[in-house]
Amino acid sequence: MEMAPLRPSLRIPQFFGAHRSFTSTPRRRLAADFFNAKRGISNKPQNSDPLKAWREPKHSPWPNRIRLFLGVPFTGLIIYSMMTGEITKTESPTIAEKDALLKRGGDVTEQSPMRLRMEKFIKQHQKQIVAGLEKVDGQKFQVDTWQRPEGGGGITCVLQDGNVFEKAGVNTSVVYGRLPRAAIQKMRVNHKALDPDVESVEFFAAGLSMVLHPSNPMAPTVHLNYRYFETADENGKTNAWWYGGGCDLTPCYLFDEDAIHFHKTIKAACDKHDKSYYPRFKKWCDEYFNNKHRGESRGIGGIFFDDLDETEKDQEQLFAFAQDCLSAFLPSYVPIINRRKNMPFTEREKQWQQIRRGRYVEFNLVHDRGTAFGLNTPGSRVESILMSLPLTARWQYMHSPEKGSREERLLEVLKKPKEWV
Amino acid sequence: MEMAPLRPSLRIPQFFGAHRSFTSTPRRRLAADFFNAKRGISNKPQNSDPLKAWREPKHSPWPNRIRLFLGVPFTGLIIYSMMTGEITKTESPTIAEKDALLKRGGDVTEQSPMRLRMEKFIKQHQKQIVAGLEKVDGQKFQVDTWQRPEGGGGITCVLQDGNVFEKAGVNTSVVYGRLPRAAIQKMRVNHKALDPDVESVEFFAAGLSMVLHPSNPMAPTVHLNYRYFETADENGKTNAWWYGGGCDLTPCYLFDEDAIHFHKTIKAACDKHDKSYYPRFKKWCDEYFNNKHRGESRGIGGIFFDDLDETEKDQEQLFAFAQDCLSAFLPSYVPIINRRKNMPFTEREKQWQQIRRGRYVEFNLVHDRGTAFGLNTPGSRVESILMSLPLTARWQYMHSPEKGSREERLLEVLKKPKEWV
Repeated sequence: MEMAPLRPSLRIPQFFGAHRSFTSTPRRRLAADFFNAKRGISNKPQNSDPLKAWREPKHSPWPNRIRLFLGVPFTGLIIYSMMTGEITKTESPTIAEKDALLKRGGDVTEQSPMRLRMEKFIKQHQKQIVAGLEKVDGQKFQVDTWQRPEGGGGITCVLQDGNVFEKAGVNTSVVYGRLPRAAIQKMRVNHKALDPDVESVEFFAAGLSMVLHPSNPMAPTVHLNYRYFETADENGKTNAWWYGGGCDLTPCYLFDEDAIHFHKTIKAACDKHDKSYYPRFKKWCDEYFNNKHRGESRGIGGIFFDDLDETEKDQEQLFAFAQDCLSAFLPSYVPIINRRKNMPFTEREKQWQQIRRGRYVEFNLVHDRGTAFGLNTPGSRVESILMSLPLTARWQYMHSPEKGSREERLLEVLKKPKEWV
Repeated sequence: MEMAPLRPSLRIPQFFGAHRSFTSTPRRRLAADFFNAKRGISNKPQNSDPLKAWREPKHSPWPNRIRLFLGVPFTGLIIYSMMTGEITKTESPTIAEKDALLKRGGDVTEQSPMRLRMEKFIKQHQKQIVAGLEKVDGQKFQVDTWQRPEGGGGITCVLQDGNVFEKAGVNTSVVYGRLPRAAIQKMRVNHKALDPDVESVEFFAAGLSMVLHPSNPMAPTVHLNYRYFETADENGKTNAWWYGGGCDLTPCYLFDEDAIHFHKTIKAACDKHDKSYYPRFKKWCDEYFNNKHRGESRGIGGIFFDDLDETEKDQEQLFAFAQDCLSAFLPSYVPIINRRKNMPFTEREKQWQQIRRGRYVEFNLVHDRGTAFGLNTPGSRVESILMSLPLTARWQYMHSPEKGSREERLLEVLKKPKEWV
């Protein structure tokens, strides 16, 4: 999972730790699934469509109560933005407790705290994206839901060895925790609202993250992540808050029309809110998703941003922006994948894809701060973090594309990012 | 390339930088080789056996002169142990200049400086190992020789898509450079002979490193590295010096007899010098080559050591120890690879190998300090550093071996390192 060029030395909560419990309802039986019992994961389908309730929720007298702890994991993304400390008991109820009460009280509305609105929004969108991708692939995602007794939890949806996707993961996660003093000091660089004089503050983080690796070398890999972060004061009142995220495309073979369509769709979502957003966030994306040791970008970019708070726009405006970005995903990618998923390709082209997959692994394991940090955190949920890696990859000594080839053209664009719109 | 748990923040010389020049004489024409011209690499075979001279050197009136800059690259290993600074011109000749003069004067003998003896030793052994592995595989290595005008250079031997080895790399490298003050301060923790009051010191580093990934899932991957490091005072006199290195085995399927043979052979080499070496260095190996985020070792270990200097044994004794360790490699591995290289295997076993290869990539890219440091160094020779990665790897979401299976048994041993002798 990719993260902003941010606070490299923050401590992280063990929210993927030993206390979590899993429930899993796979639709497709992979060999691997037979052995999951060991990990405390039940893969037994409970009925003919075990995810019917998740996909098409019915009205229930207790819907919010049941969903209270159905938060969603972030893998490396959010982990990076947060950290844990000793929990200091305060007199006032925590925001986790407040939110639990609010959820019991009824549906999330525009008057509800942003935390609940963001959580509702990413979960709704996770379903829409999963449904949209299942339509593209023809196969169903495996869904793992896990809870975090300390507050929050995750839903990891994975489709492996599909008809179209070699590996596809769509995650949501919600986390409640406390930030220690050292972390607050560091975050104050970007968020002056944080009180430097307290020992710790309560925080909330919610986000959706996704990586899709299609089988066909003509079809591009895509990555997306949108997240909301908030801290609360002693009385549970919102203190600092910000949005982060982005979406970027990684083709093995470049089709200009795909790159233009992808960037144009994202730009339209940005332009609705601020004409400066697309150029600023496109540049940020090119700079961050760069395999510096190779002198080439991971892909052909998209947008990337972080720390968008009240110094940028008001909260409603930024929430609307994040919503529009996330809503732009299916229209930005589905036409591309549908055009490419059944194109003919040669063995040589498949090998080139495998080599490019190796570069994707290099970026995620060497440069991506969120992934490295997550993996170096004891108790992290490794399978959710490394969901971002392709099913297969290749490293070939001294491989270099033929002069004038399509492979060479891709490398030229990766070495010198292009303006697509 | 793997490195000691050492000085994580040292600066590195750009000795894989833009000024190097390559000559390459491949024996086997891979598709990739056709496009190497772009990189300034000539792959044209110069005669029917272009490496004859390298494999079987003849006496020549100018042999040492020719070989003067035929040093050998270290990739991540040595890079980690060294760093560059502004070159301060001194009155006395540098050790690089002294060594050049000595080499012109005649053959390297027991009276020559350790630098020349180590260089001669690793180059001889590189040939022996390459010859031994070519005999096992039946195919020839591709040899890339490169020079470093600042002093030293490298020979990278790679066999890709062989009969036995999916990917095999055997590197030697020799480097002359200067250590800046900050690096000296850090190295003084382990080497008190270093003068803390100078602005910079000249250093020399030479080493052999190797990673072999066989195709057959029954045949284990093996890694080896032995290196010598030295600094000189203003008059070119040896100041601090030390040896480091090790060798470890990474099977996908565990054959106890292989593990026992491998450890027994290494232990015998250690025991000749000090009965405490094998247990100490076996433990160090288990601790270093560990995928902490998975809670499992990379493989079934071997030995690993660093910073062995005059506080351990005298220089002759340690050189003899490093020589015996390196000489033990072929006898420790060749019987194993010959037993396993043609064993039958299933598609499922091949997939398990691919998943284990993924773990190998994870260790090298996430935890290995030498690799990460090399990749984050501008101008490093990425192809030599990443020669250590397998040709192919796989990441499968939530894969877990069947209860009571051979795969599960391997994981048990990786989670709790075993004593094999």
